[in-house]
Amino acid sequence: MKIQAVKGTRDFYPPQMAVRNFIVDGWKAASKRCGFVQYDGPIFEYLQMYQVKSGDEIVEQLFNFEDRGGRRLAIRPEITPTLARMVNQQISSLPRPIKWFSVPRLCRAERPQKGRLREFFQWNIDVIGVEDVLADAEVIYCCLDYLRSLRLTSADITARISSRRLLAAVLMNIGIAEERLASIYPILDKKPKIPAEAFEEMLNKEIDSAATVQTIIRLMNVHAVEEIGRIVELNDAARQAMQEVSRLFALLTLMGVGEYCRFDMGIVRGLAYYTGIVFEVHDAVGELRAICGGGRYDNLLSDFGGPHMTATGMGMGDCVLEILLREKGLLKDDTLPIQRLDYFVAYADAGLFDRAVQVTAALREKGFSCDFSYKPAALGKQLKQADALGAAKCIIAGQELTAEGKLVVRDMSSGTQESIPAAQLLK
Amino acid sequence: MKIQAVKGTRDFYPPQMAVRNFIVDGWKAASKRCGFVQYDGPIFEYLQMYQVKSGDEIVEQLFNFEDRGGRRLAIRPEITPTLARMVNQQISSLPRPIKWFSVPRLCRAERPQKGRLREFFQWNIDVIGVEDVLADAEVIYCCLDYLRSLRLTSADITARISSRRLLAAVLMNIGIAEERLASIYPILDKKPKIPAEAFEEMLNKEIDSAATVQTIIRLMNVHAVEEIGRIVELNDAARQAMQEVSRLFALLTLMGVGEYCRFDMGIVRGLAYYTGIVFEVHDAVGELRAICGGGRYDNLLSDFGGPHMTATGMGMGDCVLEILLREKGLLKDDTLPIQRLDYFVAYADAGLFDRAVQVTAALREKGFSCDFSYKPAALGKQLKQADALGAAKCIIAGQELTAEGKLVVRDMSSGTQESIPAAQLLK
Repeated sequence: MKIQAVKGTRDFYPPQMAVRNFIVDGWKAASKRCGFVQYDGPIFEYLQMYQVKSGDEIVEQLFNFEDRGGRRLAIRPEITPTLARMVNQQISSLPRPIKWFSVPRLCRAERPQKGRLREFFQWNIDVIGVEDVLADAEVIYCCLDYLRSLRLTSADITARISSRRLLAAVLMNIGIAEERLASIYPILDKKPKIPAEAFEEMLNKEIDSAATVQTIIRLMNVHAVEEIGRIVELNDAARQAMQEVSRLFALLTLMGVGEYCRFDMGIVRGLAYYTGIVFEVHDAVGELRAICGGGRYDNLLSDFGGPHMTATGMGMGDCVLEILLREKGLLKDDTLPIQRLDYFVAYADAGLFDRAVQVTAALREKGFSCDFSYKPAALGKQLKQADALGAAKCIIAGQELTAEGKLVVRDMSSGTQESIPAAQLLK
Repeated sequence: MKIQAVKGTRDFYPPQMAVRNFIVDGWKAASKRCGFVQYDGPIFEYLQMYQVKSGDEIVEQLFNFEDRGGRRLAIRPEITPTLARMVNQQISSLPRPIKWFSVPRLCRAERPQKGRLREFFQWNIDVIGVEDVLADAEVIYCCLDYLRSLRLTSADITARISSRRLLAAVLMNIGIAEERLASIYPILDKKPKIPAEAFEEMLNKEIDSAATVQTIIRLMNVHAVEEIGRIVELNDAARQAMQEVSRLFALLTLMGVGEYCRFDMGIVRGLAYYTGIVFEVHDAVGELRAICGGGRYDNLLSDFGGPHMTATGMGMGDCVLEILLREKGLLKDDTLPIQRLDYFVAYADAGLFDRAVQVTAALREKGFSCDFSYKPAALGKQLKQADALGAAKCIIAGQELTAEGKLVVRDMSSGTQESIPAAQLLK
């Protein structure tokens, strides 16, 4: 009975697991550096949770099922609804600001393609309860601080930043009704993924005035806040939103990551739920999907029955990131150790097997990682095994142990050896 | 719209997440100490995988669903079938012995009860390809090494060890046909969980001879290998199996965990797939479900279309363990830090905010965990926040910074302060 893994999922053999740990451990470390604390929720929730945030269209993108009690459940495709549920449940007792991170496993019932699998890991950070754009700066900084720690430079990646508030003000100023915005955002978000003609056609279907469509197309290519005023007249709302964007860039510069950041009016994010700053980090060449994306959302907690409370956050998946790191030569399988041992205990003959077992167990009890050969083998072969297992030192139980109670300790990188009384080593 | 978590799942708020990390990080550390390397598989597999190992009865205990391609899938209730599938797929290239560990998230569609949830975490270690009972000793040792590291003593927990091979030999010797064994094991496994009369009745239904049933009942209460010979006559197969058990205990004593271990013929394990040594670790009082269980299985790889290859392993869930640790006072929520910061940066007035942001970012870039107040607040309040976030040191940007370019560094536990030139601190 040969059964395969389900398409779009991954088996993490020790080498692949080392890569996953490298990425996930880095996410955790960056989160902690920036003062975020970890949370997690269940792998499945009521299906309805995802419908509340993303509408009924989401259902077919989910692995959903019924439990024996007839409840409609779904494997989580994202953790933000869980975050909203959890924060709402303890809203009155949680210390503020809420700075939380998570590294959930997520599943989406999509057709697998490059950088997009049916099961993946995603880093999430969120700051809840801080109105100030400083919280957006913290989220973007934390992201970039992580990516910088991987040795990705501003020549490799760019954080493209915009503002939904600014976009909304500008669009309303050129005659788009507020209630039409939600249906226009997904079109604007599609721009980089479709041909210019198709984009224009989609806008023309949605907007009556051809002149307005042309203005929007010009706006989507704006890469400096100052340019906006040359395309449309600015009202107070737009000016305020522009000031907020300027302050964000000033903070990011203060934080030392300004060189990674660029204003880009074309960053819209598809989901209706964003309300302020939005951003995506892309590879500079622009060949891959976004490495991460996020922004300000003001209504999620209240959508889930909680109070009105502002929040800002981002999500970064492991798949696109891994592709980028490999392309840049920053992740090579042979540079990530699958295993490291402090000690490998070799024994010169089968008669010393018991002592080898004892020494191994004693070293493990002291907290050292330690292993030994399960079969008596020639010393040379055991030393090879020690090397294959990444042992820093090899302890040899041989003649000297029987005669003088001494163990030979061999440094595996230098090859130097010294004899140490067994009692001393195990003390 | 108020939505709850699904019953039998857990929300991991930062304090609960700290407990989970404490347990899971301990599992990982113990695995590495003993030379195991990490692997993982997908959260869902083909439903059929679980039927192969556990029969069709398993289906209703699984969260199973159909994807858009009509494939029957299930969230994993255990990782051993995945292990078998993965090892089979790379059988010819994997270095031997295969010593793998995993800490999977698992789900079972059961009714939630004490120590048994619908979603949980389980530590798995397996040694594949080693016939010698030494591999069983390594698995049991690793388990106990972990539990010992939590300060559980032999007065708290016992590893109850038996042998399926020995049991089979003895049962066949008293007239049970080999093909009947598979249906008797689950009954024997139930003994501790049901009244003595119910146990006897179940045996009587399965076995014609009342005398045989009485012999089995006596055997199930044997706690020393030597006693078996007083109840039944021993054939060669039984004697060989007894020698293996004796060698296992000798190895465990050599490894320094003998005091935790006890022979117990009553340990059978329900599943048909065990073929040699079986064991469970229980709380000494015997009030809880098993903390962990495992044993030797010879046919799993071949059941999944691979070669015949022996293996031994164990699984330990997080739920019973957490209950036991709390009962023993070895896990108190307030002893696990939710967060630790190397530095908290306070600023004496709003005019120094920018400098505080700069200092924070610079420290983070150096790899320190660091945070600051998002709102200007009185210094005393900021120091309180520093304390609440578990900061080791608080850096104060105040008058001295403006006047002399110096930052005040306050040790949060001793309260001592010193002034250091900002340039020096950030160098």
